[in-house]
Parts: sequence; structure tokens; C-alpha cells
Amino acid sequence: MKKQLFVLIFSFFTLLAFGQGDAAAIIEDFKPSTLNQPGQDYPMVNSQGYARFKIIAPTADSVRVSLGLGGRGGTLLTKAEDGSWMGTTEGPMDEGFHYYNVRIDGGKFNDPGAKNYYGSVRWESGIEIPAHDQDFYALKNVPHGLVSQVLFPSPSTNTSRRAFVYTPPGYAKDKNKKYPVLYLQHGWGEDETAWSNQGHANLIMDNLIAEGKIEPFIIVMTYGMTNEIKFGGLRNFDITPFQTVLVDELIPYIDQNFQTKADHANRAMGGLSMGGMETKTTTLNKPEVFSHYALLSGGTYKPEDIKDKSKVKLIFLSCGSKERPDGVKTAAADLKAAGFNAVSYVSEGTAHEFQTWRRSLYELAPLLFKK
Amino acid sequence: MKKQLFVLIFSFFTLLAFGQGDAAAIIEDFKPSTLNQPGQDYPMVNSQGYARFKIIAPTADSVRVSLGLGGRGGTLLTKAEDGSWMGTTEGPMDEGFHYYNVRIDGGKFNDPGAKNYYGSVRWESGIEIPAHDQDFYALKNVPHGLVSQVLFPSPSTNTSRRAFVYTPPGYAKDKNKKYPVLYLQHGWGEDETAWSNQGHANLIMDNLIAEGKIEPFIIVMTYGMTNEIKFGGLRNFDITPFQTVLVDELIPYIDQNFQTKADHANRAMGGLSMGGMETKTTTLNKPEVFSHYALLSGGTYKPEDIKDKSKVKLIFLSCGSKERPDGVKTAAADLKAAGFNAVSYVSEGTAHEFQTWRRSLYELAPLLFKK
Repeated sequence: MKKQLFVLIFSFFTLLAFGQGDAAAIIEDFKPSTLNQPGQDYPMVNSQGYARFKIIAPTADSVRVSLGLGGRGGTLLTKAEDGSWMGTTEGPMDEGFHYYNVRIDGGKFNDPGAKNYYGSVRWESGIEIPAHDQDFYALKNVPHGLVSQVLFPSPSTNTSRRAFVYTPPGYAKDKNKKYPVLYLQHGWGEDETAWSNQGHANLIMDNLIAEGKIEPFIIVMTYGMTNEIKFGGLRNFDITPFQTVLVDELIPYIDQNFQTKADHANRAMGGLSMGGMETKTTTLNKPEVFSHYALLSGGTYKPEDIKDKSKVKLIFLSCGSKERPDGVKTAAADLKAAGFNAVSYVSEGTAHEFQTWRRSLYELAPLLFKK
Repeated sequence: MKKQLFVLIFSFFTLLAFGQGDAAAIIEDFKPSTLNQPGQDYPMVNSQGYARFKIIAPTADSVRVSLGLGGRGGTLLTKAEDGSWMGTTEGPMDEGFHYYNVRIDGGKFNDPGAKNYYGSVRWESGIEIPAHDQDFYALKNVPHGLVSQVLFPSPSTNTSRRAFVYTPPGYAKDKNKKYPVLYLQHGWGEDETAWSNQGHANLIMDNLIAEGKIEPFIIVMTYGMTNEIKFGGLRNFDITPFQTVLVDELIPYIDQNFQTKADHANRAMGGLSMGGMETKTTTLNKPEVFSHYALLSGGTYKPEDIKDKSKVKLIFLSCGSKERPDGVKTAAADLKAAGFNAVSYVSEGTAHEFQTWRRSLYELAPLLFKK
């Protein structure tokens, strides 16, 4: 009898907790993702970080969203009564921004409900899982800097190339004030839109400046895949074409057209992932150009990589805790032991994604251009 | 015999020209649209203005592209041997930019091959049919102005709102030089990105300035659908919320933060379609703010609409030849007869689309801010 009662009670709670599969554990407080197109309810996210998708395609045979739990092929949607396809991720997603796409009957499309962001050498759908620390990149009622599109002449590639330039609030008011510059690179498959669109670099800066946490500086973001890197092409990557664009064409253009402190001490280079690789190679090739180096999920320096220690004012190494944080920490410790001003930062609970890099910029900015 | 020979020759040429139905009339010189995503071959366009689409969706039941001949439901794609869906428009398209989407098994998606442009209250696929006069908005090796994103405080809507500001080449070099300003509005379902993305307003200005055809001025582009206009909502349109944002919030912000000639004589307002309606209402409500008015496929003024003739320096009315050119011409003639400096412009061979408006800006710019 006792045992029967136990089984009954156990079954009852099991029914409550798991009665409808994992679904019963999901809190039904879903809201539209902040990156949805105007007026679109789906995709939605809940307070636990689950994402729920709804795709209208009444006569489709199969609809699958690329997001979900790693290695399981994403989230398979099922046909609802109204002819739409719906599904919820199997578990909570990491905080922050995620790229995704939708497989419909064997083709790869974007979710019509979501805005698009350039990643994977295509414009992909984006979704935002609200982060506990999202305040640092929120749009607030503070003075805002500009993000300006420049088209700069590039004789080496025989075209006008695009860059975006963040200038801090009040930049144009004092024509005599000059600013240091951070050249900040995107990752593989992304482009010069990444850091201000999904990265919120401008809002991170605006907020840091409003709180008096940093001395304002300029950020320049340009396209780093100059030589048309395709899948697998990184193995044969040659930095020369991009380095020429950056060092011989873009930097002189910026120094001529913006209020910059145009010297080694006031010039930094940083990048995420492939942009970190580009940063490492370029800073080592051109130690006279940059004094501050930042690799965001983009490798490490060894002390012996650097010929002239006096030319390096800061080395910043970061990654997500779901990447290889020990590598970053060890490398920074080795650099410190060798006498470099090296700092490591690990973003808790994030992987090789933009939340890691938003946080990395937030940590990096106060360290740059210290007297 | 003579007649037989004639028939033979005629048949021969007919065979050449129409031998495989209409299809044989299509010249097979298709090239990727200039608006394709990097590395994407499709959609393609040929020298006659036909567009050809290819969508990968092997197990779909039906794929239809919204573009094609008017009123016939666009272009139905057919399944090719490799599992892709292909189709060519039934006839040549008008020159210039077109929005489109793809219906797959009853759902509305974008073409993964094309870049997206905001129209119809969603990011839509875009395709470019090369125009005989495309040189005036081509990216050339000339000095380029900036397109800067500003986030300006808007107490009336309790947020920071976005605008894009075109500043001419060399703007920052002479801090004492001040410029007139054109406030330029997009159409219904579009947003503040339209004029610089699909409109190429910046390139049109860069080229006009490089050729010495205009005195440089600033263009400010912001979101005009302040009160969330939905389908059909234009009937109940109230200009007040947008007029407040524009006149009481954006203009003071621009005059404080940019090198503007901040007076009536040096301030113009123009807009396309719904933006023309907004321009007409706002200029009539606020004759002390703007001196130059431009309606691009956006209605007309009557002489009796305007209370104080001395406050109006220019009225520019335009549309495509496939719209209602007589209305625009007659209205301009009436205004001229009543003593206004009124100019009409009709874009040959274009409809209610961006090629009409690109050309209209090109025609308008030299007329603005004449001494």
C-alpha cells in the first residue's frame, strides 16, 4: 500500500513535470524577439532562453530551424492546425545574438519574421536571447555618437571600399579635439556591418562614455575578406591584400578625413575570430603602426612572437567560457610574465558568438589608450 | 516564286526570332543582378530587362516569384532536373530597382540569392534591371560624401530615433562652411534606409558634385511612419506625430550638430509617394520652416493651397510616365501661371518605383537653393 501510494505520488509529479515531455518545464512567458521585423510576433523568446518559431508554409513537407541544441540538426517544426509550422528549441539558448536560417523543403531561407544580419557569407536571420547584462549595449537616453559610412579610394583593389566609422558624441562640436582610433574587424563570413549591427559597438561606446568609464575614441570597421575567402579558404589565407587596404589606404584616409591622433601610441587593432587572426598577423607585420592589440576569440600571442616589446602598450585576449578559456588565460599569463601589459577576459556562459564579443569590447574599451 | 521565296525567308527569320515560342526572343546574355548577395549567380537579368530566377527547394510543391507582368501573379517557376526551381519573367521589366518576394508552398519568403531592402513593411528581395542612364548613380572614383547614422532624442515619442545624414565630400575639412539641407522622405512601407540603399541618394549627390552640376547640400532621411501606418491606414493618417518629430526634434538636432545654414531659405522638404503626402501637409502647415518643396510621385499642390507665395522658392513635382504624368504637368503649369517657380519632371518608361525617384532627385538637386 505504502509502495503503491509512492508510485501514485511519483507518477503524479512526473506527470506535472514531464507529462508532456520536456515541454512542461518551459515557462510560457514568450515575447517577440527584439530583432523581429516591424509588427512580427515570431520568433519569440522566453525568460529561460527558449526560442519559439512560427513559419507560414501551408503546403510544405518539412520545416526545420537551424538553431537548437548543438549537433542535433536544429529544431524541427511541426504543422499546426492553422497550416503554420511551429516549434520550440529543445533547451534554452545561450544569452545574446544568434544567426539562424530555415530549411524548407530542402532549401535554405530566412525567417520572414526576423531581421537579417550578415554572417556565413550571407544575410541570415537573427534572434536575440535577452542577457542578464544587456544593459551595457541598450539604446538609452544618452548622447549618441555617429556611425558614418565612408567610401574610401582603394587603388590596390581598384574600387571604392566601404568602412563604418564610429565617432563619439560631441565629436563635431570641438573641431580641435583629436581622438585615438581602434580598427576593429569582424569574423569570417561577416562584413563591415557586423560590429555596429549585431555587435552594438556604437551603443557600447555611447554608454561607456555617458558613464564616464572611458576616454572617447573612434572605431573604424571595414571589410576584412578582401581576397574572397570561401569555405576552407582560411588555410591558404594571405594577409597581404587586406593589410594593404588597411594600412596603406584606409588608415591614411581616416587620418586625413577625421579628427584622429595619427600616431602609433593612439592606434589599436582588434578583431573577432578571423578578425583576430588578421589582427595578430597585421600587428606583428606592422609593429610601427599599432600599439594596442586585441584578439577576441581569435587566437593568442606568444612572447617570442613580438620582436620589440617597447612598441606594445596592451595585449587583450578574450573568448567565451564555452570556447578554450584556459588557452587565453595561459597566454596572457605568459605574456605578463615576459613583461607585457597583457589582459585576458572570459565571457561566462557564452561560446563563439557575438555576446562574447560585445562583452569583450566592453572590457577592452577602458583599457585602451591609457597614458 | 518571288512570293514563295519571301515566305521562306520570312519563316526563316520568324523561326530565328520566335521559333521556340516567346522564349526564342529572349537573348541569352543573362548576368547576376548587381544586388545579389556575395557569390550568388541568381537572380539574373539580361540586356533586354528579363529577369531569371533560381530557387533551391527540391521537395517544394510550388514556387512563384512576385515579379513579372502586372496582374498575372508574377512568375511561376518550374522544377528543373537538378531539383531547383527556375523561371524567367514573361516580358522585360522596367529599368531600375524592383522589390520582390518568393511564394514557396503558400509562405512568403525572400530569395536567398538577393540582398534585402526595406519595403512593404518588411525586408524584401531586391533586383536591379540595368538602366540606360545608370551612370548617374554609379559608384565612381570620385570624392564621396558620408552617410552618417544619427540617433536623435525624441521626447514626443519617448525614444532615440534614427536618421541618416548625407554630408558632401570635404564637409569636415572646412569647419566654417555651412550647407543648405534637404529633408527627404521615403514611401509607405519603407524606412529611413531606402534613399541611401535602393535610392543611391549619396552616389547621385557625389556624382553631381564631382561634375560641378550642383552646389553641395546636406540630405537628412528619417523614418516617416511615426504613427505605425498599416495597410489602409493612410485614410486616417494624422501628420501631427511625424511633423512634431521632424520640425520640433530632428531639425533642431541637425542644426545643432551639423554645419547647416539653419534658415528658411536653405531648408527644403521632399518625399516620394507617402513621403510626398507628408511633404505637402508639412510644408503647408509650416511655411516658415521650408522654402523648397518636392513631391515625387506624391501628389500636387494647387495655387490656392499656398497662403503666402513669397515663402515658396521652388515647387518640384514629378512622377513616372507610367503613373499620371498629365496630373503633374498640369499642376506645375497652373502653379507657374499663378506665379510660382514650379517645375515638373516625368521619368520616361518608369512607374511608381525607385528608378522614377532616383531620376527625380537627380533632376531636383540642381534646382535647389538657387540664389
